Amino acid sequence: MRYSQLFGKTSKSIPSDADSVNARLLTQGGFIQKEISGVYNYLPLGLRVLTKIQNIIREEMDKIGGQEILMPALTQEESWVTTGRHTMDVLFHLKGQGNTSLVLNPTHEEVVTPLAQKYIFSYRDLPFSVYQIQNKFRNEARAKSGLLRGREFNMKDLYSFHTDENDLNQYYEIVKQAYFEIYKRLGIGDITVLTFASGGSFSQYSHEFQTLCESGEDTIYLCEKCQLAINKEIIDIQKTCPKCGNDNLKTVKAIEVGNIFKLRTKYSKSFNFYYSDKNGQEKIVEMGCYGLGPSRTMGAIVESCHDNKGIIWPANIAPYQIHLIGLDLHDEKIKLQSVDIYQKLIEKNIEVLYDDRLDVTAGIKFADADLIGIPTRLVLSKRSLENGGIEIKKRNEEKSEIISLDFVFEKIV
Amino acid sequence: MRYSQLFGKTSKSIPSDADSVNARLLTQGGFIQKEISGVYNYLPLGLRVLTKIQNIIREEMDKIGGQEILMPALTQEESWVTTGRHTMDVLFHLKGQGNTSLVLNPTHEEVVTPLAQKYIFSYRDLPFSVYQIQNKFRNEARAKSGLLRGREFNMKDLYSFHTDENDLNQYYEIVKQAYFEIYKRLGIGDITVLTFASGGSFSQYSHEFQTLCESGEDTIYLCEKCQLAINKEIIDIQKTCPKCGNDNLKTVKAIEVGNIFKLRTKYSKSFNFYYSDKNGQEKIVEMGCYGLGPSRTMGAIVESCHDNKGIIWPANIAPYQIHLIGLDLHDEKIKLQSVDIYQKLIEKNIEVLYDDRLDVTAGIKFADADLIGIPTRLVLSKRSLENGGIEIKKRNEEKSEIISLDFVFEKIV
Repeated sequence: MRYSQLFGKTSKSIPSDADSVNARLLTQGGFIQKEISGVYNYLPLGLRVLTKIQNIIREEMDKIGGQEILMPALTQEESWVTTGRHTMDVLFHLKGQGNTSLVLNPTHEEVVTPLAQKYIFSYRDLPFSVYQIQNKFRNEARAKSGLLRGREFNMKDLYSFHTDENDLNQYYEIVKQAYFEIYKRLGIGDITVLTFASGGSFSQYSHEFQTLCESGEDTIYLCEKCQLAINKEIIDIQKTCPKCGNDNLKTVKAIEVGNIFKLRTKYSKSFNFYYSDKNGQEKIVEMGCYGLGPSRTMGAIVESCHDNKGIIWPANIAPYQIHLIGLDLHDEKIKLQSVDIYQKLIEKNIEVLYDDRLDVTAGIKFADADLIGIPTRLVLSKRSLENGGIEIKKRNEEKSEIISLDFVFEKIV
Repeated sequence: MRYSQLFGKTSKSIPSDADSVNARLLTQGGFIQKEISGVYNYLPLGLRVLTKIQNIIREEMDKIGGQEILMPALTQEESWVTTGRHTMDVLFHLKGQGNTSLVLNPTHEEVVTPLAQKYIFSYRDLPFSVYQIQNKFRNEARAKSGLLRGREFNMKDLYSFHTDENDLNQYYEIVKQAYFEIYKRLGIGDITVLTFASGGSFSQYSHEFQTLCESGEDTIYLCEKCQLAINKEIIDIQKTCPKCGNDNLKTVKAIEVGNIFKLRTKYSKSFNFYYSDKNGQEKIVEMGCYGLGPSRTMGAIVESCHDNKGIIWPANIAPYQIHLIGLDLHDEKIKLQSVDIYQKLIEKNIEVLYDDRLDVTAGIKFADADLIGIPTRLVLSKRSLENGGIEIKKRNEEKSEIISLDFVFEKIV
């Protein structure tokens, strides 16, 4: 993509209402643009990042047998009355034609449980799991922190259904491992820790995945030996690492980027969701739910991966792999050479953002590249050519080097 | 995918409230499940079809320079007051925290215009076009006809921005050609006609794309020479083909599957969206909008492409390419052979749905294959093996043939 043609440019001015690093850098970088409080437009750069995050999650969900479905945002309020959750204060209520009471789903237990019930009758139909990647709505009193706490936000939610607790427990561990794999692929594996949280009335624990980050809104208590943490709900009851018993836990700030929960029979009971077992007896279905928000995770990654110049995207989710800057483009020869490199990168299926602007200074182009945060920067200029080729620099390193134009593709592939 | 493990099975019982062929066949086939009136869940088979339709549209939008973005469902009512459309009766209204007035967008001129305005200042920034694929909401008095008229539905909406009418006109023709290409790739190119519709107050015409179909809710007047039609709005003013003047137009039923519209300056005026031209003078931006609903189109395709046994998917959007039926699977040898074919198809990246069920009759498997409508059916059975291999049959043909197991992959690739 030629930067001159890209919809959504960088901006020098700091948004007056940006209360967080992710809101500021993503807005200034031309990734997102606020619509209303807690609701964002994704510009082409931002949508590329979001889609890459979604696709990594999708692949890992598919690997553990999750079947992708798509449930709606709208449903009848009645389903929420059934579970007693219609009084949740984040629920958006609205009226349909004929004065019907509708809600916008902030989560989908009230949809997926009766949906599964239509197809699951026997132990032969179990276990199974379904997931979706879809927008959810929460009427937050104070939407804040950019993509971290929105009123409309993207979510992957997986739901699993089992004959018994043992089968649920086994699958729960499989999902846990899949989550570790996802964070690793997203580039935040090293700084994301499994965190024990309250399990509600049915399980001892649920689990959160928390990305360590000074700006995080959560406080967690980390066992540095096990790389496990416990959250605020738990610390008052249990002051030691749940794995090794270590009582020297470090208090750190973090951002929640996922949570998994054994629902057990909470929702199957509400909807009378039973199956018949091998002996033809009616048994209640056991359920688990597993959330991971692509948009929130995108915000968390920016909170963790940036410096004072801008974003530093992990390679797997960067909007482009190469940020090619052409300087001295009024020189026809340099212009042709840089277009040639741009074309060859495209031919080799390397994602490239090409800063072809004629009317801005080198300084602005460098600052924009740092702000946007693409992993590898290439600069073709009069000076780089005099020095023997093209300059290559990684976003997360200070040093740059000149490589011959003949070797540039070998170097970056 | 093994059919025994697929979430969402076929159903013999006709949904009591299915008022259309697409609602009935898609529900009975296990593609969709109604949540509430006009709102559907997409099961794995249905989501596969929807995603394929979206991807074809996406590729064609990318080819004509459309940049993909993602706008939200929620916005402030105020933006709709600005354009005077806040009184539209299909607008869902809701209250956010602090008693703010919000709406669910049924279309996005009220979002995309002020969004574009944040980045477009000069003639150098024009023309450009952006599109999204996203769920929209309409508070329909009578949601009906399955996926054809929903309250929550999927839409691709492209918006283009231009310096002047001439530039808009040129791009409009480019989009028109892209739409023809989309319908061709979706498998309904032969039965989808460009239809002249009212252009509102600014243009002589807008255009619809209408898929000819006996069950269609629209009546159009077709010039069979030009394969062009005019719609009901136009017929009273103009009784002849807009291209050749033919006055012998055929009255036919059709389903609208797309519409394109020169908005001209309607929305740029509402939002005071100006750019500065080469001479530094302020000029108003010209706009076009181009809608194509993937979910509605999915419904229209089923209305057009079915027989009394079930759906007949065009190959490009079929949920799988091969429906492999194993019969006599209690015979261990046949079971191993059919699993072997299933595995080899997967290895060759051929999408295959494998009916591995042990507990249903051949008759049920054949009926389910016809209902689901995958283009090619393979049947491996004791009889097919005795006759020399595996039976192959196209969904849209009556004849079947036996081919040797050695040649089956050559035959279907």
